[in-house]
Amino acid sequence: MTTDDLTVSTRVVLLAGGVGGSTFAGGLRDEVRERGGELTVVCNTGDDLWLSGLRLQPDVDSMLYSLAGVKDLRQGWGRAGDSRRVADELAAWGVGWDWFLLGDLDLGAHIARTSWLREGLTPSQAIARLQTRWDLGATLLPMTDTEVDTHVVLDSGRMHFQEWWTRHRARLEPVRFENPGIAASVPAPGVLEAIAGADAILVAPSNPVVSIGPILAVPGLADGLRAASARVVGVSPIIGDAPVRGMADVCLRVAGVPCTAAGVAGHYGARADGGILDAWLIAEEDAAAAASVAALGIASHVEPLWMSDAVRTRALAVAALRAVGH
Amino acid sequence: MTTDDLTVSTRVVLLAGGVGGSTFAGGLRDEVRERGGELTVVCNTGDDLWLSGLRLQPDVDSMLYSLAGVKDLRQGWGRAGDSRRVADELAAWGVGWDWFLLGDLDLGAHIARTSWLREGLTPSQAIARLQTRWDLGATLLPMTDTEVDTHVVLDSGRMHFQEWWTRHRARLEPVRFENPGIAASVPAPGVLEAIAGADAILVAPSNPVVSIGPILAVPGLADGLRAASARVVGVSPIIGDAPVRGMADVCLRVAGVPCTAAGVAGHYGARADGGILDAWLIAEEDAAAAASVAALGIASHVEPLWMSDAVRTRALAVAALRAVGH
Repeated sequence: MTTDDLTVSTRVVLLAGGVGGSTFAGGLRDEVRERGGELTVVCNTGDDLWLSGLRLQPDVDSMLYSLAGVKDLRQGWGRAGDSRRVADELAAWGVGWDWFLLGDLDLGAHIARTSWLREGLTPSQAIARLQTRWDLGATLLPMTDTEVDTHVVLDSGRMHFQEWWTRHRARLEPVRFENPGIAASVPAPGVLEAIAGADAILVAPSNPVVSIGPILAVPGLADGLRAASARVVGVSPIIGDAPVRGMADVCLRVAGVPCTAAGVAGHYGARADGGILDAWLIAEEDAAAAASVAALGIASHVEPLWMSDAVRTRALAVAALRAVGH
Repeated sequence: MTTDDLTVSTRVVLLAGGVGGSTFAGGLRDEVRERGGELTVVCNTGDDLWLSGLRLQPDVDSMLYSLAGVKDLRQGWGRAGDSRRVADELAAWGVGWDWFLLGDLDLGAHIARTSWLREGLTPSQAIARLQTRWDLGATLLPMTDTEVDTHVVLDSGRMHFQEWWTRHRARLEPVRFENPGIAASVPAPGVLEAIAGADAILVAPSNPVVSIGPILAVPGLADGLRAASARVVGVSPIIGDAPVRGMADVCLRVAGVPCTAAGVAGHYGARADGGILDAWLIAEEDAAAAASVAALGIASHVEPLWMSDAVRTRALAVAALRAVGH
């Protein structure tokens, strides 16, 4: 990437969720901001939940904290330097999930959001308020304002995705994932407009099934991607046939998707073929998959995908933008 | 009081609210517990409020913390050793009242209560759960499960009682107090039964207008007191023509009640005369008022009323029980 390629008004849209998505978004934000462009992040809300009377939006908050520079980088979610004064009280009262920590600083956001929702604000409006606290260098939008859940269906019953993911560490074999409410959901205000007006659209290296999957399942959203004038590039969340962050392999297996860079590319599909991708970034470890990705009608780009520090993460964002001509 | 007077099954009911009420309740609980009796506290809920999406019951919580021995004795409310990790976050988010501190430990109770209410529990049921955490030596009942507010009507408008009391320190002259919803309220489950079955009924030295007033305004509750077989004794919250704890004088003035021990006795009235009192404890400083209290048809007892430590508080509870024959 050279500065010759810069367009002051470059409008970039990122679809993202989870830890990987929020990490990638930080690097992308740094790059887009330096270019004087505009970044809009469309964030998964499929694993939102009500817990202890509070509305939690885990992916939105991870994204918010990451872009604000206050995320706990060690654990990948929550606020840096958080404490558990309230959490210990909630445990003493027998409220909530004892395996799902709500840190004190984090609780501030949950209480603020819930307060605003109770006042009648939409989730979008609440998220708009949350992001006024810091200069994020990006606009953060939820995929939808509709309440959508992610349930994990097991042989023995069903549970909320967060229980399966956090409590059981994805060790219980799922039959399938379901997103109750998603068929009746609509994209949040601004989402389709951002996609239609974008110069580049990126799909973060997030879990394809439970982070990106719900976004694409919001009626009208995938159609918006297919109709967009911008090209769409994704970053593989699989490096060397293994998920960068644990447990995505289980999700892929349940969805019938091979846990490979090419497998996920095929799952998303070529835009020319009714899918969503024009280009796909695969890791150097997976260079051999480039041909089979190309055979899908998706331009493959071999790049270093490990986001092990801010420099590498930003370089990955640059590579993604370059793959779609920016 | 001698042990000769003890009845193992003595059932005592206390009407109380606020700081003074929760302090008195602690001493009474110690005495009743040692006698092997049963104490039921009927607590004011008139200054409950929704704040930041959470249901606060300030008087219930003060009572709970006091009986549990975890109250901040210096400030008279809240949890001892509390902190403000979350409160600082809420301020940063612009949520809540910056002059109304919600401590971290305290927030645990607010979140627990709100969570249970959202699950469909009644306030009574939520309070029943809250008090299982500690051995209170008493049963704590709200006066009603109906949501009742206390508004302060001013020349310039109206505000919630907590805003007037805590933010403005009762310095804005009120026109009157109103309890929206109170006419349609009903006593909480167990309240009328406790009163009807009591051997002694005590009215704590709480604010007569905004703590005891709402309790007595719950339809059926004052009638229950008048019909009770037990005698009813009150403890004057006025010592030496001044409220023990600030600002009750403003409330009394608005209600047209002289800020004297006799004035408050007259406000409550003699049970024989359609009021609620059989006996009234007045301070040594107010001994001269004994005759005018007696003239109301209320037995007056001059006692040391300052609850300056646990020994004096318990002695006051003993004196109150003795005044109604226990």
